[in-house]
Amino acid sequence: MQVFPPALENLIEQLSQLPGIGKKTATRLALNILRKPPALARNLSSALADLHNSIQLCSCCFSFSEDDPCSICADQRRDGSTVCVVEGSGDLLAIEKTAVFRGHYHVLHGVLSPLDGVGPGEIKIRELLSRVRSGAVKEVIIATSSTVPGEATASYLIDILSREPVTLTRLACGIPMGMDIKYADKYTLAKALEARSQAH
Amino acid sequence: MQVFPPALENLIEQLSQLPGIGKKTATRLALNILRKPPALARNLSSALADLHNSIQLCSCCFSFSEDDPCSICADQRRDGSTVCVVEGSGDLLAIEKTAVFRGHYHVLHGVLSPLDGVGPGEIKIRELLSRVRSGAVKEVIIATSSTVPGEATASYLIDILSREPVTLTRLACGIPMGMDIKYADKYTLAKALEARSQAH
Repeated sequence: MQVFPPALENLIEQLSQLPGIGKKTATRLALNILRKPPALARNLSSALADLHNSIQLCSCCFSFSEDDPCSICADQRRDGSTVCVVEGSGDLLAIEKTAVFRGHYHVLHGVLSPLDGVGPGEIKIRELLSRVRSGAVKEVIIATSSTVPGEATASYLIDILSREPVTLTRLACGIPMGMDIKYADKYTLAKALEARSQAH
Repeated sequence: MQVFPPALENLIEQLSQLPGIGKKTATRLALNILRKPPALARNLSSALADLHNSIQLCSCCFSFSEDDPCSICADQRRDGSTVCVVEGSGDLLAIEKTAVFRGHYHVLHGVLSPLDGVGPGEIKIRELLSRVRSGAVKEVIIATSSTVPGEATASYLIDILSREPVTLTRLACGIPMGMDIKYADKYTLAKALEARSQAH
């Protein structure tokens, strides 16, 4: 049943291709865009049109960038001998926001997931290995997510990188800041107990 | 702090203008669009660019349409003497999906909300009144939402339309289909009790 005009149905169809956006949300968004001044649609349209034209992968860390190398790899003040391995650009952003890490990154663009057909060749693992073998890297921080595929990817990385002359580290696992102990799940709590540290 | 390339930041900025989409969701969407084949961004971009060019308001019912009058107003099989007044196009769609209503619509494009500066002149109330006065309308079904501004708008419409020679009706208020009585809120339950009907 076609209630809306084709141009609106088309936009709804396109919006519902986005992750987490179903037909209802897409309809709400499209109607809202239609009610707002045309500038909103125009700006969003041109932002989308420009996206793939101006963005490429950094040939060193494989993060999205307009320049190659990216601004992080090109930054002389950052320590290129420490490489933090993340699943995707969202993780890179989260770590950058802490303003604590001053090394370089390596973006895998995915996690190992054999059932979905994602093996080591599908993500940037070979590139990480050759980066490590180039000799410039002293420490590799494995910062994959604490999920089943994230852990599997971490295990695989530890397996292949343990033969190389680099220090391998992982993010600490424990109670999130500000969390009430009684609401922590038992696995996190167990990890936090195991990894307890000296109180100063 | 600018972590992402400007084209990506621009898209995130534009996406976060949409209702219900904050910076985090916009970032997730933009990164996903970037990972997907460029066709997705291109199609979405052109759908947005076409939107305002090809869509106007139907001069009769004020719904969004590519033609004037819209397909509903132009449909000879529908009953133009019954006009269902809705707040917006989303409500029109919801009613059309029931496939029960075979009359015409009148889209107000908003509700009365004096605190937000929306008075009767800001929504299509004058147009409704002149449509009713044209004499072709026999029944006006007021189908504004059961919210405070929706009810206020309904009261105002009843006030001005009760002087006209039309039948005024409202959607029934009661327990939603499939809902467990014990989970219904007391106001809905009270309404449902008041408006109880003969069991056949």
